[in-house]
Amino acid sequence: MNGLMGKILRVNLTEGTISEEEIPESIAKMFLGGGSLATKYLYDEVPAGVDPLGPENELIFMTGPLTGTPCPSAGRYSVVAKSPLTGTWAQANSGGFWAPAFKSTGYDGVIFEGISPKPVYLVCEDGKAELRDASHLWGLKTPETTETIQKELGDKFKVACIGPAGEKLVKIACVMNDIHRAAGRCGLGAVMGSKNLKAIAAWGTQKPKLADPEKFREVSKKQYDLIRDSMLKVGLETHGTNLLLDMVNVRGGLPTRNWQTGSFPNEERINGMALTENVLKDRVACFACPIACGRVSKIKTGKWAGKEGEGPEFESVVLLGSSTDVGDLNAITMANFLCNEYGIDTISAGSIIAFAMECYEKGILTKEDTGGLEIKFGDADMLVELTEKIGKREGIGDLLSEGTKRVAEKLGKGSEVFAMHVKGLELPAYDSRAVKITGLGYAVASRGGDHMTGYIQGPTFIDTPFLVVENSKIDDVYTPKPKDTKVLKDLEDALTMFDITGTCKFMGLMLDAKEWVDLISSVTGWEFGIEDFRKTGERAVNLSRAFNMRDGFSRADDTLPKRLTEEPMPEGPAKGQVIDQLDMLLDHYYEERGWDKKTGKPTPEKLKELGLDNVVQDLWK
Amino acid sequence: MNGLMGKILRVNLTEGTISEEEIPESIAKMFLGGGSLATKYLYDEVPAGVDPLGPENELIFMTGPLTGTPCPSAGRYSVVAKSPLTGTWAQANSGGFWAPAFKSTGYDGVIFEGISPKPVYLVCEDGKAELRDASHLWGLKTPETTETIQKELGDKFKVACIGPAGEKLVKIACVMNDIHRAAGRCGLGAVMGSKNLKAIAAWGTQKPKLADPEKFREVSKKQYDLIRDSMLKVGLETHGTNLLLDMVNVRGGLPTRNWQTGSFPNEERINGMALTENVLKDRVACFACPIACGRVSKIKTGKWAGKEGEGPEFESVVLLGSSTDVGDLNAITMANFLCNEYGIDTISAGSIIAFAMECYEKGILTKEDTGGLEIKFGDADMLVELTEKIGKREGIGDLLSEGTKRVAEKLGKGSEVFAMHVKGLELPAYDSRAVKITGLGYAVASRGGDHMTGYIQGPTFIDTPFLVVENSKIDDVYTPKPKDTKVLKDLEDALTMFDITGTCKFMGLMLDAKEWVDLISSVTGWEFGIEDFRKTGERAVNLSRAFNMRDGFSRADDTLPKRLTEEPMPEGPAKGQVIDQLDMLLDHYYEERGWDKKTGKPTPEKLKELGLDNVVQDLWK
Repeated sequence: MNGLMGKILRVNLTEGTISEEEIPESIAKMFLGGGSLATKYLYDEVPAGVDPLGPENELIFMTGPLTGTPCPSAGRYSVVAKSPLTGTWAQANSGGFWAPAFKSTGYDGVIFEGISPKPVYLVCEDGKAELRDASHLWGLKTPETTETIQKELGDKFKVACIGPAGEKLVKIACVMNDIHRAAGRCGLGAVMGSKNLKAIAAWGTQKPKLADPEKFREVSKKQYDLIRDSMLKVGLETHGTNLLLDMVNVRGGLPTRNWQTGSFPNEERINGMALTENVLKDRVACFACPIACGRVSKIKTGKWAGKEGEGPEFESVVLLGSSTDVGDLNAITMANFLCNEYGIDTISAGSIIAFAMECYEKGILTKEDTGGLEIKFGDADMLVELTEKIGKREGIGDLLSEGTKRVAEKLGKGSEVFAMHVKGLELPAYDSRAVKITGLGYAVASRGGDHMTGYIQGPTFIDTPFLVVENSKIDDVYTPKPKDTKVLKDLEDALTMFDITGTCKFMGLMLDAKEWVDLISSVTGWEFGIEDFRKTGERAVNLSRAFNMRDGFSRADDTLPKRLTEEPMPEGPAKGQVIDQLDMLLDHYYEERGWDKKTGKPTPEKLKELGLDNVVQDLWK
Repeated sequence: MNGLMGKILRVNLTEGTISEEEIPESIAKMFLGGGSLATKYLYDEVPAGVDPLGPENELIFMTGPLTGTPCPSAGRYSVVAKSPLTGTWAQANSGGFWAPAFKSTGYDGVIFEGISPKPVYLVCEDGKAELRDASHLWGLKTPETTETIQKELGDKFKVACIGPAGEKLVKIACVMNDIHRAAGRCGLGAVMGSKNLKAIAAWGTQKPKLADPEKFREVSKKQYDLIRDSMLKVGLETHGTNLLLDMVNVRGGLPTRNWQTGSFPNEERINGMALTENVLKDRVACFACPIACGRVSKIKTGKWAGKEGEGPEFESVVLLGSSTDVGDLNAITMANFLCNEYGIDTISAGSIIAFAMECYEKGILTKEDTGGLEIKFGDADMLVELTEKIGKREGIGDLLSEGTKRVAEKLGKGSEVFAMHVKGLELPAYDSRAVKITGLGYAVASRGGDHMTGYIQGPTFIDTPFLVVENSKIDDVYTPKPKDTKVLKDLEDALTMFDITGTCKFMGLMLDAKEWVDLISSVTGWEFGIEDFRKTGERAVNLSRAFNMRDGFSRADDTLPKRLTEEPMPEGPAKGQVIDQLDMLLDHYYEERGWDKKTGKPTPEKLKELGLDNVVQDLWK
């Protein structure tokens, strides 16, 4: 098979056995690879009702048909499992260099089943794979884990692993790769920890076969040129993703003090320019990426001076920073470093801390609960301390490591109104009261309160249309129209293709669908048109939705925190706004999607249209 | 009159007299202000055949109805005269702080007539104006001139002046203001020098009256927010205009070795990132501008270490740098500083030097001509030396200071093929073989080879559509379509409105026409709709065209250097391209414009439609 290596590994951790499986071509053609192919396995093999941290859950790593090829940004993989944070289908995605290294072992992905009786790690080397004892790695942070393995196997091995948080089943634990890169969301590091799996080290010499290498080179070359011609590339390279902060703040949608307002007075102390001037040490790129939005940072002053690492990204700056009312970039950067070292999601970590601060402010959380700590908004040292406590499940961190939803359920007293999550996943760095259609995106995403499925923040908050769909224009950010729901659907279908192919969604802002279709065709040798591109994305979205529906989720779960639907934004450009039409938007969105308006399930007709006939009886029996 | 102060000064330099004139409201409504209003005076008062450096030429400084108001970028003025470099109508435009200071004296502009018997400068202070002796200023460079005047009058006075180049009638001399800002193109500094006028110092307390201050504030506020939400703002603030260099280079359209090729191998030594990392000292903004694309620079290493000034802009980097094959950013920056100090246009200066280098390479210019100098491509010291010699009219600089066209006419031997000008104005930093429609822009601009009239480079080279027109999309940069000529026309009409209102054309990329119409209405109190916006721009374009036609220009002058029309681009993405359809494009452009295809004159019908009835008999008698 071209593009794909055509084989996956299946590792039964309970038994300690490893087998090899071919990917049937019919399955490859329908699901292509990456998050979509992994979801196909998960759907077929993990039934409803499974405990996410039990042996029946699977943890699936999958690269895409473009991963490891020299086209722009082709260094990504997806991790898929049922989430311990949300109980939904979950996918996390990451760049760096691990994914091309894994694919070069000769496998597109690996499925982990069961639970190992003792800590192990998987070594994949050029067509072979074995489980090794990881007792000596257990307890180590991400950098030490990676360095220890590389010392054992050689630097050429790339490592994906969990930190101490994953081992301790922190519900917001990540899978980390290349030390600093995170498959961050939904707590999949805890699934890995629950399986006693510490790491996957990979190295190989095999390359995906390209059906038409000449066309591939030609399309690729053109893409690199188009990207270098893009203003967004310049911005992202210069300031990293944090260049977005000014744009979100100016719309009054920058989550501040746990979303109590949308304008952060200290934004100039934490924006892209501030990061570039104060902590940036070097700009780094993922595999084959011409953008280089990665930041190597070093804290230069104060108590953490000399500390180095990667980050912070825009999302991290906002959730660790403005959301906790901390305008100290050194503290934000330090908290980010700790998230990477312990292996926890920066978005969720910052959001939980901000939530705890508001609970403390309102007397819902007291010194008795916190072990004497005063958890106040704006306290930079407390931000850093709580981040570490979550990573270690220490003191109050033990409670907080369960995620906002569970903390709110435990504390009660009205705290659920300002518990900023959807389906248990903490919301990212854009307050939907400032661009209402983004609220629909949070409400319907299969993995919970997520912005990356359709990233409708692109054409709205950051005013940059996506070229990969035909029209991503939103006319009025405060008055969403029925037709805007189609824009969201189209974006979700199109951007899912980046998770599938193993590339970066930023490319969807810079390159149109024709470019991607040309690339996929030249790699696979299949006749793959724009319609196939759209349908393959749509199929993946529907299958993840079906996973949730089969497991008891329904329209009632497609909702938003009351702070967004009932508390008017108190100031700024979005002053007075609430999301008051979510039901209307859901109706229109479901209609666009071919989903049943009452239950939220994909209709039998839609499922059959997408070739998901086997799903019909699961949902409609 | 709202917005405008309603009065101009008229200074007869021959007599040494100053008078005040009201601007008739009917004229103000038709021409609004800035370059357009100045052109109306020039057209009516400077007949065909006048010597640009003689007493009959006029030099007109004019602000616009938005100049000095607190809306984004409202700090600009235009200088208008017949050009000694091109013999055409000419306008140069500049930002900074001088224009608001001048307007605050109570006048919208000033017309200079005649020639003063001895050096003088004009002092405008709050409703008064007087000519003062400038003997002590004559010979001083821009910084010394400015500082001397400010020592005499106080720092609050803002100064526009010429440097030694303007005094010596260097044909590419600028008017400089605020020391570092240039009304750069077409040699209007030589017109000022020919009149023995060294400077205009201005300060006052008067403010333009706003018809609807509340609406003005509301629209303005919204505009600031929209601009802060723009990726272009982030890029321009971070790297200055030089952020464009990568984008132009990647299309293979970066003038290199006097346009012998379009790809500069050392581009990473001179691009936006290089400038930011190596010479940037501070970022500065013009009056009321939220972008701050201005650069305060300091040379840190080498023989010019410690030297400070402003710049370089993108155009300057290219024409002084890649065009001369100099990849040394310190030398480029130093040459730029010298241009500012002597008061010469960086684009023309760099272009002439590159032309001389190619002449020397080809043996057309020899050591005998150069006084022993070896004028070779890539020689950084020679770049700096020749820049100074042009500023001083010293040695070979005396010849070069006449501009590319006259140098080529003098040297002959085929050099006119690669004399990169249109109508005598040296071309800016975009090789039209890489985006052919930009060649039409150069060919038809009233002031000669100019990119700022319609800046169709925006939607093409830098891939950023203009919001101020309805559609600025160009489908295929190598195969221009008839409909692309309408895009150019629409852009020219729309962007001329920024010269007219006293604002910056970058705003046209970030804000739509409705924004500007709202602003103009709220300032003037007139019912000013989108159609008025378009027509006012179109009227100004046609009047400047009519000035040229009346003076003997014709379709034959709307042409391009043979290098662009006959020499295929030798390498890079635009390899093999020449501009081979200029005549076709001219036909369609004239049709869009309502200009006669044979002569290039605006037709009587078009002139009448625009209310320029008086022009009909001048052109069609």
